[in-house]
Amino acid sequence: MTAKPLSGKELAVAIRADVSARAARLAEAGFPPRLTVVTATEDESSAWYVSSIAKAAAKAGITCDVLDLGPDAGADNIRHTLRELSADPAVHGIIMQTPLPDGVRLDDVAEAIGIEKDVDGANPASLGRLAVGHPSFAPATAEAVIELLDHHAVPLSGSHTAVVGRSAVVGKPLAHLLLNRDATVTVCHSRTRDLPAITERADILVAAVGRAGLITPVHIGKDAVVIDVGTNATDDGLVGDVAPEATEVASALTPVPGGVGPVTTALLLRHTVQAAEQQCT
Amino acid sequence: MTAKPLSGKELAVAIRADVSARAARLAEAGFPPRLTVVTATEDESSAWYVSSIAKAAAKAGITCDVLDLGPDAGADNIRHTLRELSADPAVHGIIMQTPLPDGVRLDDVAEAIGIEKDVDGANPASLGRLAVGHPSFAPATAEAVIELLDHHAVPLSGSHTAVVGRSAVVGKPLAHLLLNRDATVTVCHSRTRDLPAITERADILVAAVGRAGLITPVHIGKDAVVIDVGTNATDDGLVGDVAPEATEVASALTPVPGGVGPVTTALLLRHTVQAAEQQCT
Repeated sequence: MTAKPLSGKELAVAIRADVSARAARLAEAGFPPRLTVVTATEDESSAWYVSSIAKAAAKAGITCDVLDLGPDAGADNIRHTLRELSADPAVHGIIMQTPLPDGVRLDDVAEAIGIEKDVDGANPASLGRLAVGHPSFAPATAEAVIELLDHHAVPLSGSHTAVVGRSAVVGKPLAHLLLNRDATVTVCHSRTRDLPAITERADILVAAVGRAGLITPVHIGKDAVVIDVGTNATDDGLVGDVAPEATEVASALTPVPGGVGPVTTALLLRHTVQAAEQQCT
Repeated sequence: MTAKPLSGKELAVAIRADVSARAARLAEAGFPPRLTVVTATEDESSAWYVSSIAKAAAKAGITCDVLDLGPDAGADNIRHTLRELSADPAVHGIIMQTPLPDGVRLDDVAEAIGIEKDVDGANPASLGRLAVGHPSFAPATAEAVIELLDHHAVPLSGSHTAVVGRSAVVGKPLAHLLLNRDATVTVCHSRTRDLPAITERADILVAAVGRAGLITPVHIGKDAVVIDVGTNATDDGLVGDVAPEATEVASALTPVPGGVGPVTTALLLRHTVQAAEQQCT
């Protein structure tokens, strides 16, 4: 058996077409949507990612500014910048790009991002609002998992979904998105004992750890749907958290690249036009 | 076999002794700790609960005011009151008691409670902060589960803990508290398929649904520790979510009453002195 590939490309194209139409309407009405990405790193893969967001934004008719504070920026400086952007009516969406300088934590500085502009759900208050079902932006990666499952008609309600990874940007918000959709959710992590015994019982398995090949066939139940959130740079190029042999066991599997990634970028843009629509009406 | 009863009484006594000593020190320093409970209901069991908090506070040397807005209070009125209390330097802790008037949601009005005074963790931002490990008060009931397990030396790290119930006041915050302690966490709820198959594999089972006798021996793995958060008023008096026969299967079980309840009240008082200490130094 070979798992059905759950591509994210077609979905991303559809989301971006919708975003372009909405961005054009906003521009016509005199409110061109604008996203600011704040960086404080010299990390190369981060720079590559930011330029890919900027290009995608430009294509969709969203102005994207990159504000580089440099790798020595302090937490106070970053917070000050995020507060200023939050108060600037010309800016509709704000992304604080990681990695951050040593000793600076994303969830710490992100409290300075206004909830209504927090298009990548980095402010802990956005996570709290998500958890109780209030309107807020989820981290785009976490939401991309849900959108991808919906697009491929994988039922969530009543499913048992295992999420491997408990980060504030994927595992934790994803757990809440899944609970909001009536899935039973198990969150596993590095301290989980006998991971395969737990994950192999899941209908849906989401790998969001950031370790190449961590998930192997022993972790996967018969006919499970596997979503690979990992993007690990290796000598063989970009690979996910799921080993290639998983395709022999899983019923469906997202490719890396071409699965969760393109949907994530498209959702960042959708959040930005949505934020602009809300702020301009 | 009969499960070991995991009493909360001794732990509650110890917490209250600590609270009394800290409240006395605060009073001596000219900062008598003060808690305000806001009510907007004529519900009798709520009135009984509030009077039990007020009595326990008085015994510990904490002034407890009950501010009754009446069962017809609107969301705006409630929010206005909570904001005023949050701005009042003489008030250190604020509890918004439930039930609320029809159409008013706790997580909605609770956004008006200042994080530093939110001693029952009702503001969604408190939940978000809890999720990312920032200082914040957890809902006392959720924290009582952790304190009770610690008190009875039940190891959390590496355990597989199933939480039945996904409320914003117990299930969801408890999931984060457990993840912060390195437990693997499964959150189950009314839409979970084959609940016994999932819960019977857990080392620790927490019932937080509010339905008398929902958890029976079929739900409980051999030697599992069972924590009963339920407090259901029945013709037979106050009973938990766990059926009495559970004691034949579980290795340990909290009684209702006398388990989680007294610890919850004690923690509300501890949060209040802690809030007062932080606000007065």
